[in-house]
Amino acid sequence: MSETLFKKHEIVLRRAIEAIENREFWTPYSEIPSTKIYGEGAREIGENAFKSYLNKPFQLGQPHNGNFIGSEHSPFGFDLGITYPEIDPNDLINYSLKAAEEWAKTSIEKRLGICIEVLDRLNNRSFELGHAGMHTTGQGFAMAFQANGPHANDRGLEALAYAYKAMDEVPTSTYWEKPQGKRAPLEIDKFFTIRPKGIGLVIGCNTFPAWNGYGGIFANLATANTVIIKPHPNAILPLAILVKTLRQVLFEEGLDPNTALIAFDTLDKPISKELARRAEIKLIDFTGGSKFGNWLEYNATQANVYTEKSGVNNIIIDSTNNYKGMCRNIAFSLSLYSGQMCTTPQNIFVPKEGILTDVGPRSYLEVSEDIGGAIGSLLEDDATASEILGGIVNLENIDRLESASLLGDVEIPSRTIEHKFYPNARIHTPLLLKVDSVDIDTYSQELFGPIGFIIGAKNTNESMEIVLALLKEKGGITFGCYSSDEKILNEMEDVAFKGGVSLSENLTAGLFINQSAGFSDYHATGANPAANATLTDAAFIAGRFNIITVRRHAKKP
Amino acid sequence: MSETLFKKHEIVLRRAIEAIENREFWTPYSEIPSTKIYGEGAREIGENAFKSYLNKPFQLGQPHNGNFIGSEHSPFGFDLGITYPEIDPNDLINYSLKAAEEWAKTSIEKRLGICIEVLDRLNNRSFELGHAGMHTTGQGFAMAFQANGPHANDRGLEALAYAYKAMDEVPTSTYWEKPQGKRAPLEIDKFFTIRPKGIGLVIGCNTFPAWNGYGGIFANLATANTVIIKPHPNAILPLAILVKTLRQVLFEEGLDPNTALIAFDTLDKPISKELARRAEIKLIDFTGGSKFGNWLEYNATQANVYTEKSGVNNIIIDSTNNYKGMCRNIAFSLSLYSGQMCTTPQNIFVPKEGILTDVGPRSYLEVSEDIGGAIGSLLEDDATASEILGGIVNLENIDRLESASLLGDVEIPSRTIEHKFYPNARIHTPLLLKVDSVDIDTYSQELFGPIGFIIGAKNTNESMEIVLALLKEKGGITFGCYSSDEKILNEMEDVAFKGGVSLSENLTAGLFINQSAGFSDYHATGANPAANATLTDAAFIAGRFNIITVRRHAKKP
Repeated sequence: MSETLFKKHEIVLRRAIEAIENREFWTPYSEIPSTKIYGEGAREIGENAFKSYLNKPFQLGQPHNGNFIGSEHSPFGFDLGITYPEIDPNDLINYSLKAAEEWAKTSIEKRLGICIEVLDRLNNRSFELGHAGMHTTGQGFAMAFQANGPHANDRGLEALAYAYKAMDEVPTSTYWEKPQGKRAPLEIDKFFTIRPKGIGLVIGCNTFPAWNGYGGIFANLATANTVIIKPHPNAILPLAILVKTLRQVLFEEGLDPNTALIAFDTLDKPISKELARRAEIKLIDFTGGSKFGNWLEYNATQANVYTEKSGVNNIIIDSTNNYKGMCRNIAFSLSLYSGQMCTTPQNIFVPKEGILTDVGPRSYLEVSEDIGGAIGSLLEDDATASEILGGIVNLENIDRLESASLLGDVEIPSRTIEHKFYPNARIHTPLLLKVDSVDIDTYSQELFGPIGFIIGAKNTNESMEIVLALLKEKGGITFGCYSSDEKILNEMEDVAFKGGVSLSENLTAGLFINQSAGFSDYHATGANPAANATLTDAAFIAGRFNIITVRRHAKKP
Repeated sequence: MSETLFKKHEIVLRRAIEAIENREFWTPYSEIPSTKIYGEGAREIGENAFKSYLNKPFQLGQPHNGNFIGSEHSPFGFDLGITYPEIDPNDLINYSLKAAEEWAKTSIEKRLGICIEVLDRLNNRSFELGHAGMHTTGQGFAMAFQANGPHANDRGLEALAYAYKAMDEVPTSTYWEKPQGKRAPLEIDKFFTIRPKGIGLVIGCNTFPAWNGYGGIFANLATANTVIIKPHPNAILPLAILVKTLRQVLFEEGLDPNTALIAFDTLDKPISKELARRAEIKLIDFTGGSKFGNWLEYNATQANVYTEKSGVNNIIIDSTNNYKGMCRNIAFSLSLYSGQMCTTPQNIFVPKEGILTDVGPRSYLEVSEDIGGAIGSLLEDDATASEILGGIVNLENIDRLESASLLGDVEIPSRTIEHKFYPNARIHTPLLLKVDSVDIDTYSQELFGPIGFIIGAKNTNESMEIVLALLKEKGGITFGCYSSDEKILNEMEDVAFKGGVSLSENLTAGLFINQSAGFSDYHATGANPAANATLTDAAFIAGRFNIITVRRHAKKP
């Protein structure tokens, strides 16, 4: 088999390696859902493709036991009615093992070529994946397009770039000549081969199945591991489309499609625990709640476990030179996808004595009011609001939102919005609450969903002390701060360093604390309880393969 | 503080990075114990320095609780009489935490400069370290010189090279400019900082305290982690000398010497388990038996654990073009340091129907006899034998050797050798036993020490099948084979790949299966039960630090 696909994609791969090294802006996948970029008719083709999946069994072409299961429900208010072919965990493992030998011997270049080809084909179908994402995660369409299309592909390609770089740094052979004084030198030929760890299990989440999943999936495949993908029962479709595409390209290249398998389960009868402790599973990637993430870390000791779990994200306001920009920026961060991002800030600390701004001093109450006001303005128009907020991904989040209004003084209540096209959509604006910094039991829990606290702190010092303690105990994926004083910013950076979290300073326009860009931002740090790994750095890749040496005399001694 | 030490050593560091990339022969530390290289008088200075430690408390300059403990006994037959200042685990942790903040903020260059300076100073004292190694591990002097001097320093420098390369690949800052269509681009400055994991605990072994320890120790220090080194109670001195030197250089550079601490315990009252589960310990490096290594992997889940444990090493003989060279090479491998290397082969598989060689066919019995004979010739002269064999490191190994002669047909019995200068030295030649391949319960256990089996197999195919099964179940650090048939060598390579072990083919002169060279050979693979890590590759380093980002608008929006 030739490495044709590698040749086709080599320039993009090399460019991606440059990007992870200089971390400047770059992407081969446009984030703009425009037919000018994605081709005339792309919008309709994508929507029709999505609709063609509804209310029937998904044609996956994967071995199965004859049962078809599935109960995905769109947060926009309808059942997808798609069923998927169930396969028993034992069979999954056996098919994966059977595919493993050939995949391990497939050249690095061929593996990489296949993976980038898959990303390319998926990217061309970003409208289809946008709809698949929208109706499983509840993201507004534009966001779903990006998070299940180009931005997910960025994270996949980024993982491939790290993997290729890591493997490419191991020479395939060397000639080792050791001087032996007056005697002839010792001449040894050595040959080095990349060896996969085994089967990689990737456990998907409900909110970002593709964006959070592609890193582990493509890192595993690039480093010669076979993969079993176990999506969240409510967000299967985007990953089913991925796996079907992967299997198609593997087949076209004469390889065993079972190199990539997908496992299905239900909320009532989950199979992740059973799979995760199988001896054959040597790598596990997980995104989701801390409870199961911690369970995996402590129990799946036969595998290398990469987790992104949950934490509590904080913003500290000390002062600002752009008050309006600050309020708008925070309002958007709280609203985007109804606060259902692992990067959404929950706690906003404001000194009770108020802050200095470019438009004069503002009291604690005024800051709270103005952030509330900015949310109000942002979400004034129902159509815009629907697009920004998307739908609430599950009923648990709605229950939490409903009971949360008792947790503090309501600055702005949550409002229900009716969607123009989806009458049963679950769309709710953020609830903003005022609490005192002493109410730490309230705001130190992660309240996933559109719930924010404006926390009155004694002063910025107290804010920093509390945030550092929260980072150490609960962890966090993001941390933001506002100050017009460089000295205070330095102290914030110290909190970030000690707490092991990355910091966004004085974001007032265009960029939001929630956002993490492929090739440039390391997503999570792996340095606090919210995650033990980063998307994507060298450490995310290095543990996915070993190096086997063969050595012998270069010349017959 | 300047980076003077970095400048002093930068050329060596850059050259080391080249070496790990091309894996050709290179070292800055000469392995030859010659005064021509190490300076006139180096031999006496080293020996006197060693003698000056004996029968008194070791002057470490480290905080302690007032007790002095220590019971090292030379395998050459005398008590060292050195005591070391005991320090309570709690105090160790607290002193380490106190030093951590400053060390984390010390520049990468300064950290690297300090580390290489320490290796340099230690290398100049290789004669001293040779004696320290000899009388704790039992290695003959030449080997102890190398394994506790230059070769250990190679592994330390190699880890520093990997660490520097890994950190250097993370840019310190970037300018991220994202196009925004017709609007002005989004301009963001990002700053990236290396953050240590926490405290690194390095648990030393009795046989190679320096060679197996330096990788983890220097990898931790380079990546800004503080270290606590817990040597084996019988092999403290080489690591105490290291830590004293480390503390001296830290002090000279105005840093807290507690960045490097050493912990002492006794066989009766070990402290490793207590330390290993402390929340503050985020990295653990361990070399030693599988029982404790596995315990660490399963229990110290708060830390990244890097282990080299025990396994069973095999050689398969199929045929050879250099029969005499093969027998001599195997004889040396079995004899070197009395088979007390984790790389020593234990099982030598020979087809019962005999083999083809350059000197005609040889029956199974003849091969066994000729390897036995080669051992006999090699160890004929007591002085030479003493130097090759060294002393038996502990009484357990002697008991095992004594009872092992019942495990098969004795090809050659173990012989006790009297040392010229050390009348109480524990020196014993290898015991070589013949067993049948069906006696798998006998030869599948690791029988640490000078015990080898010549195993009669049905044929080479059976040998390969058994070795693969052993690798999967017990693991192995090394694997060797002899065949004059390229096709069979390919099959051996397949066994090595599947079993996750590196392979030495047809070694007949100058290089031995036991040997692993810094900068070129990956020691262990991390791919079978004998070790979960490799000395030293990118994966050995990548998990020892995180990356913290600070980002902000490049221009005020």
